[in-house]
Amino acid sequence: MRVGVLGTGMVGNAISTKLVELGHEVTMGGRETGNERALHWAGTAGARGSQSSFRGAAEFGELIVNATAGSASIRALEAAGDEHLAGKVVIDVANPIARGSGSPPVLELSNTESLGEAIQARFPQALVVKALNTVNATVMCDPARLPEPTSVFVCGNDEEAKSTVCGLLADFGWDGDQITDLGSIEAARGTEMYLALWLRLIGVVGNPMFNVRLVRGE
Amino acid sequence: MRVGVLGTGMVGNAISTKLVELGHEVTMGGRETGNERALHWAGTAGARGSQSSFRGAAEFGELIVNATAGSASIRALEAAGDEHLAGKVVIDVANPIARGSGSPPVLELSNTESLGEAIQARFPQALVVKALNTVNATVMCDPARLPEPTSVFVCGNDEEAKSTVCGLLADFGWDGDQITDLGSIEAARGTEMYLALWLRLIGVVGNPMFNVRLVRGE
Repeated sequence: MRVGVLGTGMVGNAISTKLVELGHEVTMGGRETGNERALHWAGTAGARGSQSSFRGAAEFGELIVNATAGSASIRALEAAGDEHLAGKVVIDVANPIARGSGSPPVLELSNTESLGEAIQARFPQALVVKALNTVNATVMCDPARLPEPTSVFVCGNDEEAKSTVCGLLADFGWDGDQITDLGSIEAARGTEMYLALWLRLIGVVGNPMFNVRLVRGE
Repeated sequence: MRVGVLGTGMVGNAISTKLVELGHEVTMGGRETGNERALHWAGTAGARGSQSSFRGAAEFGELIVNATAGSASIRALEAAGDEHLAGKVVIDVANPIARGSGSPPVLELSNTESLGEAIQARFPQALVVKALNTVNATVMCDPARLPEPTSVFVCGNDEEAKSTVCGLLADFGWDGDQITDLGSIEAARGTEMYLALWLRLIGVVGNPMFNVRLVRGE
């Protein structure tokens, strides 16, 4: 599959590399073609990896990953262009941390709204699926580094789009039983607001190599 | 130990019953002495259980549990009286769900504030420890009903108070390795905002008999 990954940071890098390893063709998009980090990634990614602008990456991709900073995501997707998102699965892995918010970080959207919902509302023809925003870049792409299967959450309004994303998550190594469909994109409030707990847990654990596992009663 | 449990709902009932089972003396407090549910509980609780007003319960308790509805907690604690909270451990198990908020429920305090912090700020002499607000009443008091040890979070500004609460949680059946100290009371933002995910998970699981387990990388 051809995938456009928007974002040149740690998360964009990790996901792009994983997708190429899995045999997909990836264009990493930055604010402008020739972004230094995107060039570096494309230089190491082999024949299936390339770089471009947000727009170029979105045009290239049959599936789009939003791995931009949450506070810049709507602008990045606007730069990508409605016409290059329409009808495509858009996996939103971003968290809406307010730029320049102190410690602890504050969410720009929460409680009665979420970034996932805001993206779906702004791009009604995109098939937005929120996923992977509850773990760090390493765990996202290599969940088997944790000693037990742990949970990953998906939500979105389109069942087929969620099914596509769940397949990709399984390819990434996520345990099928722990891929948890929370329902419509409104559930993005839950996975984004979890960030406040996740950030505290980084302090407790001492690093971001952890996740939670859903344990059900019998 | 003498414990004052403020709140006559499911959570207040479950915690009061568990405390009596463990050998503690409990006074359950309602808005007024003689609350129907408090009378019913006291009638079944045996010699170590009694009922009173918020004030009466707080006066009785060496340790206080706030199990009132989050939107009413500050008023309940004000009725209990500063002088009956000062110097005591106050376990806050409430979530600040806005009264009359629709579906999904909305938090009255979140992101930049929390109920735990608001209680600590309003009653600076109380030793507030947020705990148990991430699971339902049954799991709170009987975590062994789940097939694996799962996580419970505590936070608060007083180390000795947290130590007391961790001891009580162990008595309730919580696994020591999974009792997770998140630091100061500010971390209540994290455990309260988790409610949005928890409520979604109830829909997925079909009932509230679940919890998460923190899995750390190696």
